[in-house]
Amino acid sequence: MPADSSPSKPDSTAGRFSYDGLDRAIHEKARLGIMTSLSAAPSGLTFNDLKDLCGLTDGNLNRHLEVLREAGLVDVRKEQRQPRTTTMCQMTSAGRARFLKYLAELERVVADAAAAAKGNAKARTNPGRLSTA
Amino acid sequence: MPADSSPSKPDSTAGRFSYDGLDRAIHEKARLGIMTSLSAAPSGLTFNDLKDLCGLTDGNLNRHLEVLREAGLVDVRKEQRQPRTTTMCQMTSAGRARFLKYLAELERVVADAAAAAKGNAKARTNPGRLSTA
Repeated sequence: MPADSSPSKPDSTAGRFSYDGLDRAIHEKARLGIMTSLSAAPSGLTFNDLKDLCGLTDGNLNRHLEVLREAGLVDVRKEQRQPRTTTMCQMTSAGRARFLKYLAELERVVADAAAAAKGNAKARTNPGRLSTA
Repeated sequence: MPADSSPSKPDSTAGRFSYDGLDRAIHEKARLGIMTSLSAAPSGLTFNDLKDLCGLTDGNLNRHLEVLREAGLVDVRKEQRQPRTTTMCQMTSAGRARFLKYLAELERVVADAAAAAKGNAKARTNPGRLSTA
């Protein structure tokens, strides 16, 4: 038996939990809400509707839309609508493709974590070496 | 018909997509990998194993562990093991509880997005007003 008897590892593959597919432009919590909202509205949403749906302030929504726009994930455009100009926000085709890829990775996280939690429920009946196990 | 005929909204409830349960201490991509790794290893992981699993540098792992430790989500401790001191990382009981809550919210995101994508697949056969729809 080697001197360093490692505690159990879930999977020894390097980078197994690096989740490189979690695109940082999308993963940030507010932007994830924005992308999910827009993915459900193919013809776009007004700035105000998006603000309500995501529970954001004007300033925050503006800031996050700018990140998404610069990444090519959303279009933001002014439209002349009675009685005033309306800002319309819409996911681009590239944004839709990248969001689907992101979601596939997110599903992998959820599956990994669910598997880990299940394994753990069993393991916890046999307490580990440290006090919180 | 009102002057402002809004485009379709997925759900008009304010804050419907705010995802307040996405705990920022956990949601950051690297920390999500760390928490998932640790949730699968009830007796803890060495710093080096965790670094490999998450594909992180020493500096990055240290930084993220410090955030998790300050939030009370993980324990980090030095242990005397032959032939040298080993740093052990382990999820706390509070960390486990918060991670499970976080995961429930993450599952809600995935379900919302899957529903949106499905609705969209239909909607896209009937192009919207903007060029990228």
